[in-house]
Amino acid sequence: MTQFAQQIAFLQEIEKLKAVYRQTTVLADNDRSENSAEHSWHIALVAHVLRPYANGEVQIERVIMMLLIHDIVEVDAGDTFAFADDVDMDAQSQQELLAAKRIFGLLPAEQGQPLIELWHEFELAESADAEFAKAMDRILPLMQNMANDGGSWARHTVSKSKVLERNRYLQESAPRLWQYACEQIDIAVANGWLTDN
Amino acid sequence: MTQFAQQIAFLQEIEKLKAVYRQTTVLADNDRSENSAEHSWHIALVAHVLRPYANGEVQIERVIMMLLIHDIVEVDAGDTFAFADDVDMDAQSQQELLAAKRIFGLLPAEQGQPLIELWHEFELAESADAEFAKAMDRILPLMQNMANDGGSWARHTVSKSKVLERNRYLQESAPRLWQYACEQIDIAVANGWLTDN
Repeated sequence: MTQFAQQIAFLQEIEKLKAVYRQTTVLADNDRSENSAEHSWHIALVAHVLRPYANGEVQIERVIMMLLIHDIVEVDAGDTFAFADDVDMDAQSQQELLAAKRIFGLLPAEQGQPLIELWHEFELAESADAEFAKAMDRILPLMQNMANDGGSWARHTVSKSKVLERNRYLQESAPRLWQYACEQIDIAVANGWLTDN
Repeated sequence: MTQFAQQIAFLQEIEKLKAVYRQTTVLADNDRSENSAEHSWHIALVAHVLRPYANGEVQIERVIMMLLIHDIVEVDAGDTFAFADDVDMDAQSQQELLAAKRIFGLLPAEQGQPLIELWHEFELAESADAEFAKAMDRILPLMQNMANDGGSWARHTVSKSKVLERNRYLQESAPRLWQYACEQIDIAVANGWLTDN
């Protein structure tokens, strides 16, 4: 297979991310489920726009690329609801690692390997870039749920403490966004969209 | 309105791009119509992967940002089928310009103005970055139609000459992709997916 054929094969394979559905819904489109491809587009622009709130230095181009590819493993591994109780996280991680190797491995190694590493950096969430990327992956569903009468929180009877715990990422990587998240979570509780336990 | 509130308003407004549907369909998802948000995600990665075929220098981060925002005007102006005969292009351009000003204008000016200019640069397609971005916007639907028995070409009885004309962008900005496009178009004609006039 030529390098060119490998590149086309990868680009055709990731089309499948448009068929991976999340718990979030798109209010603007009859409240249908959101897929991970359009989510990945949205979150890249969230990072671009909210970059001024990053605490410290981030290389925004790396963050954007990280976010564009962060969910591609779901083509094989599926989407995991953030507040699900019954997920075996080790098995899920293992499945996602295999998926990353298979899917990015469709590319010529000089292109695929850096993407595997970038995806892994996102998963580890230890670098400044990855922490900010993870923060974006917290704030976007919160914004969407707040615009949609509680959205997936309300449908799954999620508690305030779980959402706070999940968003605590923001506290260090983007304090202004953490403040926003806390305010929104209080509103959500007042509106009955989150349980107060 | 604070800068922060403007930023959130913009990010919630562009959610509507997930409800703008194109003529292309997603074979991997029961052949449903593709929306412009997931298209924008896909095309950003197409640019990243096919960058080695750009003829001359491109700043790939600018190309990717250009592609992430290139369709946002469709929130107001809708999607125009590339091979439609009955579109008043001047009126369409005018509507898209108003849309760009309204939607990017939701952001603080220091963020919104550069995006209006980037969108305009894409539309003009005169800079090397914009030419390569336009080339990506040609090659992706071609790849999708070829993977889908002719897709929107076949459904709308599009002619070979129209597709060649539309893809001629590739000839200068990415000659290897032009060669690929020509090969694929010949296959499409042989398969009866394009008319040979």
